[in-house]
Amino acid sequence: MIPAFPILPNPNDPRLTRRISGTDQTGAEVTLSVVEERPLTIYLNAQEIVTAMTIGDYPEYLALGFLRNQGMLRGDDIVTAIDYDEEVETVVVRTTRQTSYEDKVKRKTRTSGCAVGTVFGDMMEGLEGLTLPQTAVRTSWLYALAHQINTVPSLYLEAGAIHGTTLCFEEKPLVYMEDVGRHNAVDKISGFMFQHGIPAADKILYTTGRLTSEMVIKTALMGIPVLASRSGFTAWGVEIARQVGLTLIGRMRGQRFVCLAGEGRLIRDADPATQAEEGRKHSRKAAADDE
Amino acid sequence: MIPAFPILPNPNDPRLTRRISGTDQTGAEVTLSVVEERPLTIYLNAQEIVTAMTIGDYPEYLALGFLRNQGMLRGDDIVTAIDYDEEVETVVVRTTRQTSYEDKVKRKTRTSGCAVGTVFGDMMEGLEGLTLPQTAVRTSWLYALAHQINTVPSLYLEAGAIHGTTLCFEEKPLVYMEDVGRHNAVDKISGFMFQHGIPAADKILYTTGRLTSEMVIKTALMGIPVLASRSGFTAWGVEIARQVGLTLIGRMRGQRFVCLAGEGRLIRDADPATQAEEGRKHSRKAAADDE
Repeated sequence: MIPAFPILPNPNDPRLTRRISGTDQTGAEVTLSVVEERPLTIYLNAQEIVTAMTIGDYPEYLALGFLRNQGMLRGDDIVTAIDYDEEVETVVVRTTRQTSYEDKVKRKTRTSGCAVGTVFGDMMEGLEGLTLPQTAVRTSWLYALAHQINTVPSLYLEAGAIHGTTLCFEEKPLVYMEDVGRHNAVDKISGFMFQHGIPAADKILYTTGRLTSEMVIKTALMGIPVLASRSGFTAWGVEIARQVGLTLIGRMRGQRFVCLAGEGRLIRDADPATQAEEGRKHSRKAAADDE
Repeated sequence: MIPAFPILPNPNDPRLTRRISGTDQTGAEVTLSVVEERPLTIYLNAQEIVTAMTIGDYPEYLALGFLRNQGMLRGDDIVTAIDYDEEVETVVVRTTRQTSYEDKVKRKTRTSGCAVGTVFGDMMEGLEGLTLPQTAVRTSWLYALAHQINTVPSLYLEAGAIHGTTLCFEEKPLVYMEDVGRHNAVDKISGFMFQHGIPAADKILYTTGRLTSEMVIKTALMGIPVLASRSGFTAWGVEIARQVGLTLIGRMRGQRFVCLAGEGRLIRDADPATQAEEGRKHSRKAAADDE
């Protein structure tokens, strides 16, 4: 069963932030909301796979999505249980299929940038032969999405130092996940899609972070044909997007954006001149703009 | 021998960026400078340790610093050779001591946020009993450093989507490293310090990225008592800084900053009111502010 859409951040969840006191530039005492960061060790059946540092919400989706995005959980795998133990900070995903990834876990790639995570085995594994559907994307949707995502109450606006990723359908944000690691936010979305059987072909993924190779690969493996961001690109990210035919849009701020791959999907139905420039008072910019 | 200070970014190095064409919001063709991102596989003697995604400059410092920050290279280890092979994208660090980290390499922690990397073994290893020197830090130095670092020509200003970390002495930036992964930038600085025997006790580390647990742990293990950033904090980063007695300064923008740990080192010799507010035209803000 699909939970009621949309899933939005809950900046008021007391487990996700902590009030911490210190001093400001004048020496006066100040108290800030600071995001939590805690370890979560993910197991697949009897095997310990990884310890991720995460803000701590949706541990089940994070575990499922991480395993799915690493190719350790197959699309047709039957998950019999997901056991999360808050006290010992572990989550165990159990499947009917017997799994063993000893060899795979040995080969790690430390990926770059804000989208940094650990990729086991060959990063490009699974990309050959992948074709993404030629779903059209209206630029009016992109503007509407950016506006909604940048203004909805979020931990980002409350405490900064966090990344957000949103699964979108046309001009509607459906699932908005946040995490200290942007790769975790994407994995949570992947876990959500796996758990509830959400189709990927007609979706758009919007992220606050940079469009690195890891982000592009994850998005493509999830089967989502369009990835948009307010941040910039890396050359390898663009190269992979072009290889797999993914639409890659970056530097999306106010009326501006740049498309460096998959231009063919764009339907330019919005007049950029009618879109507001991103101002000083724009809510996302107004918060501490953590990098 | 210590190379001539300072080491600054070289935004004109043609290996570090690529010109890529696409379209902007109006459909007009645009060409951007986009940072490179390439794999580098690091070996310690005969053992393959990790593949890092990096912009590609200073591979020798990156390898040395990565191994040093993971505790795989000891302070008293004698490095007999560092063999970098650009074509096969590998760097091999050779030591007189026989090394084997099979068990350690098996335990990985995927750390969070922009400072994301892979930590082998126990992240907190080496922190117990660590004492950082009570070096004083003048706030006038911090303001002078932030101003210089934010305005010096860099890949960040040229192409965005990159992080910078600077090793500083008093009000002087000494070594400014950039990378797609901020953890790589820090590792390159660590490698530089190891190679040239640079003392850490009187240094300040300045980073563009968030003050996560990984950044705080790396800085402490390097023996640097002060870490400053224009970005925000995570709760665990603050907690560890307080445990090890590291001075942690974040949200440093214009005249503002917040100190959440190690306040005792600060000498407040600068009047914040005489510092310029960070304006719209400030060069770091004016570039695409990648997150």
